[in-house]
Amino acid sequence: MRVRDLGVVIGGGTPGPANAITDVAGVRVGHTTVIRGDGPLRVGEGPVRTGVTVILPHAGSIFDEPLYAGHHWLNGNGELTGMAWVREGGMLTTPIALTNSHSVGVVRDALIEIEVRGRGRGAWGLPVVGETWDGVLNDIDGQHVTAAHVREAYDAATTGPVAEGNVGGGTGMICHGFKGGIGTASRVVDGGWTVGVLVQANHGRRERLTVAGVPVVIDDVPRPVPPEFEGAGSIIGIVATDAPLLPHQCRRLAQRAGLGVARTGGAGENTSGDGFLAFSTANRGHLPSDALGVQPPRVLTVDVLPDAYIDPLFYGAIEATEEAIVNALLAAETMTGRDDITAHALPQDRLLAALTRR
Amino acid sequence: MRVRDLGVVIGGGTPGPANAITDVAGVRVGHTTVIRGDGPLRVGEGPVRTGVTVILPHAGSIFDEPLYAGHHWLNGNGELTGMAWVREGGMLTTPIALTNSHSVGVVRDALIEIEVRGRGRGAWGLPVVGETWDGVLNDIDGQHVTAAHVREAYDAATTGPVAEGNVGGGTGMICHGFKGGIGTASRVVDGGWTVGVLVQANHGRRERLTVAGVPVVIDDVPRPVPPEFEGAGSIIGIVATDAPLLPHQCRRLAQRAGLGVARTGGAGENTSGDGFLAFSTANRGHLPSDALGVQPPRVLTVDVLPDAYIDPLFYGAIEATEEAIVNALLAAETMTGRDDITAHALPQDRLLAALTRR
Amino acid sequence: MRVRDLGVVIGGGTPGPANAITDVAGVRVGHTTVIRGDGPLRVGEGPVRTGVTVILPHAGSIFDEPLYAGHHWLNGNGELTGMAWVREGGMLTTPIALTNSHSVGVVRDALIEIEVRGRGRGAWGLPVVGETWDGVLNDIDGQHVTAAHVREAYDAATTGPVAEGNVGGGTGMICHGFKGGIGTASRVVDGGWTVGVLVQANHGRRERLTVAGVPVVIDDVPRPVPPEFEGAGSIIGIVATDAPLLPHQCRRLAQRAGLGVARTGGAGENTSGDGFLAFSTANRGHLPSDALGVQPPRVLTVDVLPDAYIDPLFYGAIEATEEAIVNALLAAETMTGRDDITAHALPQDRLLAALTRR
Amino acid sequence: MRVRDLGVVIGGGTPGPANAITDVAGVRVGHTTVIRGDGPLRVGEGPVRTGVTVILPHAGSIFDEPLYAGHHWLNGNGELTGMAWVREGGMLTTPIALTNSHSVGVVRDALIEIEVRGRGRGAWGLPVVGETWDGVLNDIDGQHVTAAHVREAYDAATTGPVAEGNVGGGTGMICHGFKGGIGTASRVVDGGWTVGVLVQANHGRRERLTVAGVPVVIDDVPRPVPPEFEGAGSIIGIVATDAPLLPHQCRRLAQRAGLGVARTGGAGENTSGDGFLAFSTANRGHLPSDALGVQPPRVLTVDVLPDAYIDPLFYGAIEATEEAIVNALLAAETMTGRDDITAHALPQDRLLAALTRR
Repeated sequence: MRVRDLGVVIGGGTPGPANAITDVAGVRVGHTTVIRGDGPLRVGEGPVRTGVTVILPHAGSIFDEPLYAGHHWLNGNGELTGMAWVREGGMLTTPIALTNSHSVGVVRDALIEIEVRGRGRGAWGLPVVGETWDGVLNDIDGQHVTAAHVREAYDAATTGPVAEGNVGGGTGMICHGFKGGIGTASRVVDGGWTVGVLVQANHGRRERLTVAGVPVVIDDVPRPVPPEFEGAGSIIGIVATDAPLLPHQCRRLAQRAGLGVARTGGAGENTSGDGFLAFSTANRGHLPSDALGVQPPRVLTVDVLPDAYIDPLFYGAIEATEEAIVNALLAAETMTGRDDITAHALPQDRLLAALTRR
Repeated sequence: MRVRDLGVVIGGGTPGPANAITDVAGVRVGHTTVIRGDGPLRVGEGPVRTGVTVILPHAGSIFDEPLYAGHHWLNGNGELTGMAWVREGGMLTTPIALTNSHSVGVVRDALIEIEVRGRGRGAWGLPVVGETWDGVLNDIDGQHVTAAHVREAYDAATTGPVAEGNVGGGTGMICHGFKGGIGTASRVVDGGWTVGVLVQANHGRRERLTVAGVPVVIDDVPRPVPPEFEGAGSIIGIVATDAPLLPHQCRRLAQRAGLGVARTGGAGENTSGDGFLAFSTANRGHLPSDALGVQPPRVLTVDVLPDAYIDPLFYGAIEATEEAIVNALLAAETMTGRDDITAHALPQDRLLAALTRR
Repeated sequence: MRVRDLGVVIGGGTPGPANAITDVAGVRVGHTTVIRGDGPLRVGEGPVRTGVTVILPHAGSIFDEPLYAGHHWLNGNGELTGMAWVREGGMLTTPIALTNSHSVGVVRDALIEIEVRGRGRGAWGLPVVGETWDGVLNDIDGQHVTAAHVREAYDAATTGPVAEGNVGGGTGMICHGFKGGIGTASRVVDGGWTVGVLVQANHGRRERLTVAGVPVVIDDVPRPVPPEFEGAGSIIGIVATDAPLLPHQCRRLAQRAGLGVARTGGAGENTSGDGFLAFSTANRGHLPSDALGVQPPRVLTVDVLPDAYIDPLFYGAIEATEEAIVNALLAAETMTGRDDITAHALPQDRLLAALTRR
Repeated sequence: MRVRDLGVVIGGGTPGPANAITDVAGVRVGHTTVIRGDGPLRVGEGPVRTGVTVILPHAGSIFDEPLYAGHHWLNGNGELTGMAWVREGGMLTTPIALTNSHSVGVVRDALIEIEVRGRGRGAWGLPVVGETWDGVLNDIDGQHVTAAHVREAYDAATTGPVAEGNVGGGTGMICHGFKGGIGTASRVVDGGWTVGVLVQANHGRRERLTVAGVPVVIDDVPRPVPPEFEGAGSIIGIVATDAPLLPHQCRRLAQRAGLGVARTGGAGENTSGDGFLAFSTANRGHLPSDALGVQPPRVLTVDVLPDAYIDPLFYGAIEATEEAIVNALLAAETMTGRDDITAHALPQDRLLAALTRR
């Protein structure tokens, strides 16, 4: 059940066929979900409620065919490795992975290993790995994600509908005081371009949750953490588009995803790492890889969207981010984790009631 | 009539006594409004619908007692002079002025002249002047703002309630397809700190206007420009607080003002210059001026708000920005300008009707 | 007499025909020099030692045919208007002007006026004006630059050799304790691209001056200001290239100009506004202007230099900046200004002696 | 043998007692050097020429007592994890580690593990790990650095003299075509403040090496890679000071380290990740940790250096970076690595000869 299935419409735009980031042709998503054990926390043993999500930016090898990209922090209390080169060179040169805060390293090095496996000796890379903190439900200090989990998600990545909620990197996440996780949505905008968003949503205070502009106040469902600790999570958003954006235009698009967070009740809270990466699948195959020994042409020719046509993409990124967050909330099921702490799902009926009061 | 007078409440926070930027102790605002002529545009003659607004950041001389400050662009299609030093040195060293896009220069140099008059020979400065484009109603190419207008606004600056709507720099502005202009609001937050916002609102498409989360769709009031040109304006927001923020914290606060714009329906549209400057009046008198010949102590002692307490300020800045925009819309009266173009005021009854349908 | 005429070679690169920014085809430079009066300072009367320099980025109208551009501050204690849009949109849409710190406004508004004159009603612009502080020699508080001076420099702009030293915006400037001003140089690099630099040099301490790696210590020439006030100036550098750089690549090139300042003894001192703007003349005519009513194609095709070939441009920008600074020092003649303060020229023989000791 | 032992003086400043980053009281450095095997590369087996260097920013636990920090990229083709929070919150909350490009992840997660071990459950962190690429000499794709190596370097960290050259993260590095690695230097500046720099130097082309302003041209020593691949490395610089700098001032200091790179012949080449992190040990114990459950005071009082006194720190950071790079070159010994590739040490006599010709 996704938000549109409830009859709730966010914004005036039109979703793509899967209403997912995979509506941008070639984008693939794979999850590894790691759930193991119950009861009291024993660091290194569990309970485990975590995972990893891998996004492959196009149908080929991103190592060999990089894309233009840009990023933005609404609030930089988080990690998104690889951003220095995205900012400097404007290039996405690796797959994107999302996981928990304490496993960023193993996932990063595993992406290097995958690159080495695929390209052979001489490779180098600056992998892109984002994180949010699942320590409320998960034995995060136990660092249970492994390189094998990353390879599994990488190999599983496919086009089409994307599993949402308690899957992959989103497995143990909490959002606006309810069970959170992975969510996605898309918009097809003027000019026929598609913009798709995938979020790993672990942010927000319950009292600030807003869906389609309507405050959703639900006080009687138990909270996984006291209200004063809400908003201490994070959200990572990945924005894909087939519109031919240059790096600085990708950065602008990434910034708009943050506005979608704001419209749903986020504020870039102090302890929240709210980071966004946008990439354009256009110009695939036209941008030189940094593989040693490859001699690019003296001058490239690339396609560029005139800024005069960029507003619809901005609106699309805002809306799709809003909808992806709500989809994450709706898809996520109630989960009990370490020390028997429970994060409850957002009750669909209560959400509908709030929205129809309007 | 301000938005609260209509019984409409934006967010959960508490406004200060004047619900204005001047609730931050010492902040003063002055306007010069220049309205002259009617009928067809004759460049250099009119009609004139413009002005200048001056904000003095504290009760003393900002030239002698600078403040910590930071800034953020939601979309940088605009001008806000003086930002290089705000970003580099974290200091606000001049008054702030807002005017139309084609008169930024005269206003900037006039602030230098005011500094020279006040401090005598040897002064230098990097004045802060922001702009939005009032060319729909005003003979903007005629550059009708003068240094005398700036001095007048500077001398008129006072604490207490702030005139809103068609005044000062906001005189000829248009916002979400209705008459816009100057608006202000404030919040008193946890810890007793005040955050106040003043906007010069000239941005937004009519179809995207959202008040307190509710889309306000009013199609039957004539538009000053065709819908396809809406959103081509800009908004400048000035955020003041008495909380002791360091420069990087001020930058974070400025960024949150942009979320208030987003929640009201803005998107940082491509042709919109949406820029925000935040300053902290704390540590006034403790920061050294750059006046030549003044020898500061070897080490300063300054107050700093721990980040653990910054979220309420973020929420306050978001809410106050939302409310300032709506206050601008409500205060602005229908205006006819050059070539008899009319920008209509947002009808209060229609706004109320939209809000109470909810 | 320029530095190469002395047999001094800076770096290993090859200058263009004029060894000037105008070696980039189409770039034009014009100066208005304003020198008037002698003796004691009387604010508003003089003595006047100032001016304005205008750079037209290509042979056509930059208003109608914008270029990709990027900028960088080595130290942001200065003003360079128009940078918000350069950073956001990556576009240079106006001429570039350099003047004194207290006349930035009048020059900015004059560029608007020139645009209005050229494009007619409906124009808008975000002019690029940089400044350095000539208040040691000039009645800077008197604000003697006028719109007519700007028009004069604009109309005088030509290709070919560029006047250096005490001309245009550089008229009253001081650099490393000697008379400074305008300087320029260029490099033709691998691939046949040209990179040209023009500086308005008003920065640096005498004790740190370094030419071609050699410290140039000259203690016995009188100083215009005591050593403790040296380094309080600024340097603005404009970098032009015909290599097809995207906005983010222009930003990288601008950053390298700062390295040339460092190699000559600058450090981005606290009170120095060391700012750099780089633009690419490639893709002229392929980038849409923002003129209202002009409908760009749905997708542009632009040329891009692969990053694999960018290092030679970086080296060229570094070297040309170094050489432009030394050219400014050599071209500038001893000047006596307000209150009979004299800034002495760098003695050529002393420079040569220092360099040949090596 | 360090550069000063050769009688070569870089800049006019005064080094601290150890002429090392550890001259900043409390700063500790530890290395783990991993050298194993010879002959042809067999990925996963060796030869291994790598390691990890850990910098502890003060005498206590950085997890519990964070410091103000700031960072800067001269060229962002590299990784320095943890920078999002440094930029956003201005805080250094973890130890700093340097290693090879393909082992950043394992080192990052090991720092988390160390934090968990030290602080117990509930910890979270955004570790700071920088890298340069040692794949010319080392089986970098084999990812031979382990968590145990990190713990070893962490536990070994001490004050006093710092081992340089082929140690720790610098073990397999190459700089300006000679054997590179770890180098350090310091300056005691006006006001009694100390600024110390540690670099992991793997950058630069041989033809551009410049020591104390003098080009050092040595063509007859064999090169580890062809000249066209030189400059493809990276340099990470860590800048420590006891001067009380705020986050934005730390950022400015970090930027100056890049000028030291430029003065030694670097240019922020396209494939070079030249990143710098600066932190201030002042205000230790006055800044709140982010440990859950710790309630900071409502307002902190912190010390701040007035900008009027910051230039000497800038000069010190530039000089110390230059000297640290040359120290790395002099300390590093000729090393033969994978596939019998040899990186030769910079010959001291040749360096001296070049310098005394002057």
